[in-house]
Amino acid sequence: MKELKLALLGFGNAGRAFARLLLDKEAEIEARYDTRVIVTAIATHSRGNLVDPRGIDLAAALTELSEKGHFAKSVSGTTMDIVTGADYDVLVEMTPLQILTGQPAIDHIKGAFRRRKHVVTANKGPIAWAYDQLAQMAQEQGVFFFYETTVMDGTPVFNLAELTLKMARVTEISGILNTTTNYILEELAAGKPYDKIIATGRKLGFIEADAAMDIEGYDAAAKLTALLNVLMDAHMTPDRVDRTGIENITVADIEAAAKQDCCIKLVCRGAMENGQVVATVKPTLVPRGDLLATIDSTSSVVSLTTDLMGKLSVVEHAPLIEQTAYGIFGDVLRVLDGIHG
Amino acid sequence: MKELKLALLGFGNAGRAFARLLLDKEAEIEARYDTRVIVTAIATHSRGNLVDPRGIDLAAALTELSEKGHFAKSVSGTTMDIVTGADYDVLVEMTPLQILTGQPAIDHIKGAFRRRKHVVTANKGPIAWAYDQLAQMAQEQGVFFFYETTVMDGTPVFNLAELTLKMARVTEISGILNTTTNYILEELAAGKPYDKIIATGRKLGFIEADAAMDIEGYDAAAKLTALLNVLMDAHMTPDRVDRTGIENITVADIEAAAKQDCCIKLVCRGAMENGQVVATVKPTLVPRGDLLATIDSTSSVVSLTTDLMGKLSVVEHAPLIEQTAYGIFGDVLRVLDGIHG
Repeated sequence: MKELKLALLGFGNAGRAFARLLLDKEAEIEARYDTRVIVTAIATHSRGNLVDPRGIDLAAALTELSEKGHFAKSVSGTTMDIVTGADYDVLVEMTPLQILTGQPAIDHIKGAFRRRKHVVTANKGPIAWAYDQLAQMAQEQGVFFFYETTVMDGTPVFNLAELTLKMARVTEISGILNTTTNYILEELAAGKPYDKIIATGRKLGFIEADAAMDIEGYDAAAKLTALLNVLMDAHMTPDRVDRTGIENITVADIEAAAKQDCCIKLVCRGAMENGQVVATVKPTLVPRGDLLATIDSTSSVVSLTTDLMGKLSVVEHAPLIEQTAYGIFGDVLRVLDGIHG
Repeated sequence: MKELKLALLGFGNAGRAFARLLLDKEAEIEARYDTRVIVTAIATHSRGNLVDPRGIDLAAALTELSEKGHFAKSVSGTTMDIVTGADYDVLVEMTPLQILTGQPAIDHIKGAFRRRKHVVTANKGPIAWAYDQLAQMAQEQGVFFFYETTVMDGTPVFNLAELTLKMARVTEISGILNTTTNYILEELAAGKPYDKIIATGRKLGFIEADAAMDIEGYDAAAKLTALLNVLMDAHMTPDRVDRTGIENITVADIEAAAKQDCCIKLVCRGAMENGQVVATVKPTLVPRGDLLATIDSTSSVVSLTTDLMGKLSVVEHAPLIEQTAYGIFGDVLRVLDGIHG
């Protein structure tokens, strides 16, 4: 039986859900690919690092974290030490994101490519800020670079375009890509006060401690840029998106929209205009009968307009952390298919 | 340069749009696959047959049909003679469908498989009535069998599940799959009389001469069965679907629905119940805020619930005949990928 060695950077909720999925599907992967997928390194920011070239006991690692909050037999060193020194075939990038720079994920990915390792990233930053450079490095080094999870978790968007819309060209992309703002706008429309929405949203895990990146549209802009770079060769960065957040949307705005039988959604859109891609993220009036109006709270949608296949939309309904894990898992399976195909 | 020879069964609107697409993309296919895709046979019911092992001049054939309505240098013989006798690598099945039997398409496909030829079918009948047998034959003969176009034209559904949702299991399928009934229900809701809707729909090409198969839910049941057979191993036929058409829906029903802020849609649904797949097609009350309520006239939607990827939906917006052609085209590209991959 063959072996595929993974190094996991980051081991938060998504990383742990991915580890549980690997454990659940161990036998099925072995049967299907004649390959044992093992994790040889786990790097975390504050819980220590694990390294074992023969394969970390994931079940034990998960138990240890939930019981003690950190790894008992941690190996010293930085995450970059794991990138440059550990024994692995695929780097799985899941570190916390600096949305305004894409770092340190970009450097982790470059470090892996320099060693001719495949990369799966759940981090949108690198695709938004450095896609051209990273895609070129991957091609030059002859390795795979997959990033399905960066937009709408494991719901197929990038893989859908690449694998199922062959030779079709995407001419326009639109959608609702940020669930935090979607949730806030909906709760505002339901008459709840802003402070209470934020407090409840945090308790439910829908809203992060620092919600500014979501509320001001940075997260949506980064996701839109990732889509445009990959699917429309936009060669752009998130700072080129014409971006307006929802911070100035008032209850009065929402009530005025309702009187026109509309709601307000933070809509992302990118399209070719005069030979270049123009991208906007802004609060938009959406008629009640429109698909976008039905995308509630944690759901999201991407619509692709293409030259050969007209317009189609993909909706992700109320995902859980397991759907993020599946995105990473699916990309690891693509590596297996690519290696053995 | 390699060669891939296609035999086209049926050359109606979809077949002709597919031929135009082949002509448009000739250079791009050659560059991408180092393969010349040629059509060596075209079989029609009433316009004659063309056969040329070196490749039919598609542009001339299209002009001839539009100018004269039939092929001038037609070869005598039946469609089955083409299946069993012509020189081709891929049979492209686009003959008119007998929805209550799946024939004669099933026999055409079997004939191609017996000769170890690949098959791409735009015909839902074979997938609804004989999927297990045909899939098994294809596997035994070591040939490809693709059928993306049978549900929602070229919008990825089958290819999406197979190529982008690996190892995920579909546990429930629902959707709006028949556009004729969708159009009629919407026009009824807009206050138009039934007779006028049918007449206008026929003029616009939304409604076929014999609309009974659509209105009584047979078309939707066949599509649902195709989805369930492929994606949920349902081993079933359309006659096992609990089917109610829209023939008894009255304007009063629609008005009553509107009072509850709902609309009526012909909804398809299949799910596991007590270890077997139970399938229904029936007019259903859909709340205005539901995704299904926004699927208008010629658009359609499939929602998949899965074990690993939660629930996702794919929407096709107002397709034209070019989107049917793309479905066939995409499947031919899958054959090319499979042969050369």
